[in-house]
Amino acid sequence: MSADTIRMQLSELDTLCRQVLSRHGFSLAHIDAITTTLMRGQVDDCASHGVYRLLGLIGTLQAGKASPDAEPVIKDQAPAVLRVDAGGAFAPLAFSRGLPRLIEKANHCGIAAMAINHCVHFSALWVEIEAITSAGLVGLACNPAHAWVAPAGGTVPLFGTNPFAFGWPRPGAHPYVFDFATSAIARGDIELHRRSGEPIPQGWAVDAAGNPTTDAIEALNGAMLTFGGHKGSALATMIELIAGPLIGDLTSAESMDWDQGAGGLPYHGELIIALDPERFLGSETAQYLQRAEKLFESIVNQGARLPSQRRFEARHRTAREGVDIPSQLLTDIRALLN
Amino acid sequence: MSADTIRMQLSELDTLCRQVLSRHGFSLAHIDAITTTLMRGQVDDCASHGVYRLLGLIGTLQAGKASPDAEPVIKDQAPAVLRVDAGGAFAPLAFSRGLPRLIEKANHCGIAAMAINHCVHFSALWVEIEAITSAGLVGLACNPAHAWVAPAGGTVPLFGTNPFAFGWPRPGAHPYVFDFATSAIARGDIELHRRSGEPIPQGWAVDAAGNPTTDAIEALNGAMLTFGGHKGSALATMIELIAGPLIGDLTSAESMDWDQGAGGLPYHGELIIALDPERFLGSETAQYLQRAEKLFESIVNQGARLPSQRRFEARHRTAREGVDIPSQLLTDIRALLN
Repeated sequence: MSADTIRMQLSELDTLCRQVLSRHGFSLAHIDAITTTLMRGQVDDCASHGVYRLLGLIGTLQAGKASPDAEPVIKDQAPAVLRVDAGGAFAPLAFSRGLPRLIEKANHCGIAAMAINHCVHFSALWVEIEAITSAGLVGLACNPAHAWVAPAGGTVPLFGTNPFAFGWPRPGAHPYVFDFATSAIARGDIELHRRSGEPIPQGWAVDAAGNPTTDAIEALNGAMLTFGGHKGSALATMIELIAGPLIGDLTSAESMDWDQGAGGLPYHGELIIALDPERFLGSETAQYLQRAEKLFESIVNQGARLPSQRRFEARHRTAREGVDIPSQLLTDIRALLN
Repeated sequence: MSADTIRMQLSELDTLCRQVLSRHGFSLAHIDAITTTLMRGQVDDCASHGVYRLLGLIGTLQAGKASPDAEPVIKDQAPAVLRVDAGGAFAPLAFSRGLPRLIEKANHCGIAAMAINHCVHFSALWVEIEAITSAGLVGLACNPAHAWVAPAGGTVPLFGTNPFAFGWPRPGAHPYVFDFATSAIARGDIELHRRSGEPIPQGWAVDAAGNPTTDAIEALNGAMLTFGGHKGSALATMIELIAGPLIGDLTSAESMDWDQGAGGLPYHGELIIALDPERFLGSETAQYLQRAEKLFESIVNQGARLPSQRRFEARHRTAREGVDIPSQLLTDIRALLN
């Protein structure tokens, strides 16, 4: 804990989140879903997806770009497809309301998809992925964002940071989970550099003229770059398509247009796919889940890391010790109570 | 056409393929499926997935690691899942036999998966993806290979080149298709460098001691690297899992063990997922497919390229002009007739 952070117990921070959301008129169901999601970011020591996001949430609400209380509407679209209309509210409640049906459909059909529509998005996908692996399912999730990222070979922002997340259930262990932006870096990380005044590394972004930049503000006004060159750019395009037009929702460019410069959080859809190993494998399920364990061992035994291990370690630590919140951030959050 | 290539008409090369396969005892159904796949690589000017692969196919057969005539067995695994047992034969026939059922299931359920099991693999996924987009569906496909690629942070080969392919149907245009190795480069490209004696670029591979190398032979004996650092490595892991244990088949390391040094082509499974836009979107399908076109326009209009455009251009050209085959390769292929 450094001088400008404040150690808080989880229950204390949880209560503060709920107070802020309640003060701004969120329904109890949304307060619960949003607080759970923000706290999951915080306890996993992922500051860019923790309570810091309260600032953007309330800002978006105050800009008239989000509903604090819309009830999600579930539509049984096809035997293996579910659509959940979030009604312009934040995504977590729509996800948790749709999840039981997604699990049912995956259990029955072997593979199933859930589209969340018309949601305002701020949350990390790994939280949702872990809810899917907890049900013994394999999960994939992705969504567009605002048009911040240029395609490979271009300089004009078109894609969102377009995260892609995957999870695999592991018997008796934390699941195998990754959740990465198809941009070179998460936008939240550039925003944290802007707040701290630190330069960003080369390769993250170009300025408005298309030149490489290490200035966080110029990057935010220019275009971010994808990871992995044309391959990352192809993945970002895929996510625009399958979590945009395929599910009857906005691309990142359309989300940006909808915002009309209000500075709100992205407004779009999300696609989640769940696969049931038991439906693929029947009586051989345990045997093949065990063979997957050999893969993880082979990664770890050569000194490489599994993704998310740092998050899982942080989760154990913060459960005991609480979390350190920058004092300026805490001041900003408490100001939302006024 | 350079001095050491020979211009051939497509029908001529097609006939040669069929003769070679027939000479080695392939059934008519396999001859047809394999020839179609090899010719698709050749006409798209992707030499590493064209008739060059005949050498590996016949070598694998002669090593006793592939069946020339096994009939695929289709199993209706779940309402949205199909498994096709290739019975140790090459993959293309299993794919084409399973495809109509995959389309039916996707049309009915909205999303469906096809697992191909126990197949020997040599083919490019885009050929399969285009068969899916031709049916108006969105497609994803991936498979492991042999353990050639080290995970990020490691030096021991564990993953295959693990291609990931995606396709989106475009009304009145070639589909949007990408098909990339999650390794920094396709293994076939390193093999072509070995044949030509050219050095490979930095970043493709390390030697057996884990040091960076530009020598194709040292690379083939060492470990290839993934694209995009830990993100590419995470994708490669996902592909091992969902196209390995999830479908009751081998990982790349298990495929390599199965080969026992015979130098055969990889033996494993493949996962294909198809999504039906009409089942997601109903009466709004045409409208949203049109909105996807805006995304493609925005990419092209800023000077960036859509993936696969070079292949589509080559396809038009080679249909008129035929293809140029290295004369040494043609000699090697014709030697297979003896």
